[in-house]
Amino acid sequence: MTWSSTSAAPRGERPHITLFGRRNAGKSQLLNAITGQNLAIVSPVAGTTTDPVLKAMELHPLGPVVLIDTAGIDDDGGELGALRVRKSLDMLARTDLALLVVDAAQGWGEPEERLLDLFRRRGTAYVLVVNKADILTPAEREELARRLPSAPTFVSAERGEGVNELLRQIVDTLPGDWALPTIVGDLFDPGDLLVMVTHHDAGAPKARLILPEQEVLRDIIDHGGLALVVEDRDLPLVFARGIRPRLVITDSSVFGPVAQIVPEEIPLTSFSVLFARYKGDLETLVRGVRELPRVAPGDRVLIAEACTHPTTEDDIARVKIGGWLRRRTGDQVHIDYHQGAGPLPEPLAGYRLIIHCGACMLNRREMLSRIVQAREAGVPLVNYGVALAYMQGVLRRGLSPFSELQALLDEVPSEGEEAKDPRSAKPASGRGSP
Amino acid sequence: MTWSSTSAAPRGERPHITLFGRRNAGKSQLLNAITGQNLAIVSPVAGTTTDPVLKAMELHPLGPVVLIDTAGIDDDGGELGALRVRKSLDMLARTDLALLVVDAAQGWGEPEERLLDLFRRRGTAYVLVVNKADILTPAEREELARRLPSAPTFVSAERGEGVNELLRQIVDTLPGDWALPTIVGDLFDPGDLLVMVTHHDAGAPKARLILPEQEVLRDIIDHGGLALVVEDRDLPLVFARGIRPRLVITDSSVFGPVAQIVPEEIPLTSFSVLFARYKGDLETLVRGVRELPRVAPGDRVLIAEACTHPTTEDDIARVKIGGWLRRRTGDQVHIDYHQGAGPLPEPLAGYRLIIHCGACMLNRREMLSRIVQAREAGVPLVNYGVALAYMQGVLRRGLSPFSELQALLDEVPSEGEEAKDPRSAKPASGRGSP
Repeated sequence: MTWSSTSAAPRGERPHITLFGRRNAGKSQLLNAITGQNLAIVSPVAGTTTDPVLKAMELHPLGPVVLIDTAGIDDDGGELGALRVRKSLDMLARTDLALLVVDAAQGWGEPEERLLDLFRRRGTAYVLVVNKADILTPAEREELARRLPSAPTFVSAERGEGVNELLRQIVDTLPGDWALPTIVGDLFDPGDLLVMVTHHDAGAPKARLILPEQEVLRDIIDHGGLALVVEDRDLPLVFARGIRPRLVITDSSVFGPVAQIVPEEIPLTSFSVLFARYKGDLETLVRGVRELPRVAPGDRVLIAEACTHPTTEDDIARVKIGGWLRRRTGDQVHIDYHQGAGPLPEPLAGYRLIIHCGACMLNRREMLSRIVQAREAGVPLVNYGVALAYMQGVLRRGLSPFSELQALLDEVPSEGEEAKDPRSAKPASGRGSP
Repeated sequence: MTWSSTSAAPRGERPHITLFGRRNAGKSQLLNAITGQNLAIVSPVAGTTTDPVLKAMELHPLGPVVLIDTAGIDDDGGELGALRVRKSLDMLARTDLALLVVDAAQGWGEPEERLLDLFRRRGTAYVLVVNKADILTPAEREELARRLPSAPTFVSAERGEGVNELLRQIVDTLPGDWALPTIVGDLFDPGDLLVMVTHHDAGAPKARLILPEQEVLRDIIDHGGLALVVEDRDLPLVFARGIRPRLVITDSSVFGPVAQIVPEEIPLTSFSVLFARYKGDLETLVRGVRELPRVAPGDRVLIAEACTHPTTEDDIARVKIGGWLRRRTGDQVHIDYHQGAGPLPEPLAGYRLIIHCGACMLNRREMLSRIVQAREAGVPLVNYGVALAYMQGVLRRGLSPFSELQALLDEVPSEGEEAKDPRSAKPASGRGSP
């Protein structure tokens, strides 16, 4: 779990995702399928099987959500049934995203039309899901899709098929930009002092802080921290004064020298690592970076940038990472470049690794959508910041506030040596080129 | 002197202003007239009377400049004279602004045409000055002005007439935006720790620092300081940690409570005061604020804002200051409002006081031009930041890094009480309404 404050997120701030549909459409089974693959149940709320059931969960990689299971809205059990239907529909007021679960065996009918009409009138975002899709032939799927108001996601909750694709639909449809509530505020206590190390050379813009530095600074003071800002050359003065910061956050470009100055026992990270976590999912990226030293001659790698006019920093990262991969593989790596917003270019399955830009022009939802897309295709994904930190041999130290992620690097070749001496590269793992 | 690092400014960074003209046009006398009124000679450079003479000076309120006196360019003394002329014209390469001094007794002729042609071909900024103007009748002035390529400034160096107007021409014509080299860097030594106190309420923009805070922060770290940024509510934690900052800079809106927390012996100022100094001339503003409690019933006051769409902060300042003046005078003050760039509205002479906005949309040159214009008219000028600090009773403390300016407040009624209790107002000074 990369978001350590998850369990503390108040229910009110979590997006609410509600499953609606007929009785026996498999809503509960679908919820369990998502749960089984993607959820850690935090606090199940007790309720009867016919009352709506709310579950506060960590839906990886989205973060904290509330999933709501409802009774079938076609309940015809008299007065009690009418009450159940009303309770189900009452959930709409709390719903940020509705999953309209269609039973493949029963098809699209009056109950689904009624729900759809309700969603539209209320302005509720929704995803159409056809469950039990395994009983349909391809022709029957096409026939059913034609009768639906928009393309559905076909899943089989029983077999666990299509669940990742549904997750991506959820990420793409859930309203909001999905920003996490804090960049760094969960890593310290109010009253703690944090150090921000900046690096401005002659070419740096005058009289300004770049936006990520402003955002981190505000996040620190907004959460009751004291933010000590210092140029890298003056960092020794901080420790000479006897100041013991709770955390040091440095400009990535000077991580190496800064790591020499900051005592080992003080957690040290970079703006890049913090934003990798804030903008996407740090665990995915750290898992992805483990594939970097395993890229072998003949492998294909996708370098993806969200802007068509990348920043200077992006240019530098692309050149550095591309050069590193070519040296490692004796120039036998095939690198594709993709620029632009929207989904990553399909098919992804042939790639050994996707290396993504810092996503400064994407919001978290857009970056998560790409992460889920890569996961669907079974391709690891890393970003520039995490990849460069690895290549510079500073990633392990940069993850010091996230010890559970540091552990993911235990089996990976020592990073610093990797970067310094490509000849020490170990044989790539068995996976061949596509 | 409000700019304490003046004498340390290297000559290369100072604008060079050179007087050119015929022999006996009164160039040296004019230089002395400016000097006598506006200059503190710092380091006169030795030279013969016929070689160019360079003087590094503090030209109030512009700051550090180099004034250059040259030999007459109509020297016809043979080979030696030709050498002198060449040396004079060589100064053009160092000149940021040329003063073309015309002798009223000799009028406009070939030597002046030659200089003008030279300035134009070189792209040198220039000001036309007619010296000895006291010998001309108004009709003769008009006649001479008609023959000149643009309107000249008439001065009498001997009588000291027109020198302030010339100064304003210099401010308006000298190239560059006249920014000082530092906002706060001259108030501490490298390695010092400074505290910046911010105040963000619920309505404040998220995830950003406002520009003045960014500028001060960069100025601190660019000059080798450590910048500890903290919200006002958390300021006590700084001193509880035993940290002794060299200087505390606070958001003006919380100056009062912050002043209660910061120990008396630690200098404390506000972003407003620092920018009043950086954008204009703090001494002028402090002299101006002394007139605030002296505004009497029947007086006219000009409130001047540089933008036609003032900021929210400007709106608040205008309302607060206007209300304060009306209470003080029993609603018997006449307030004119002026919005827009360019010169202040003439005639200014009828005003008791000019109260100017923070000038965030003006550069220093533009603000200084207005300050000189007010001085020409003999009207004191203060700005919003300094006026509000006075009204809140915190100006004296806010000037603690500038003890020579604090002394200017010695004769002024106690500020805090002024602000709290309008009934304690002392009788206004004798000056009647215009």
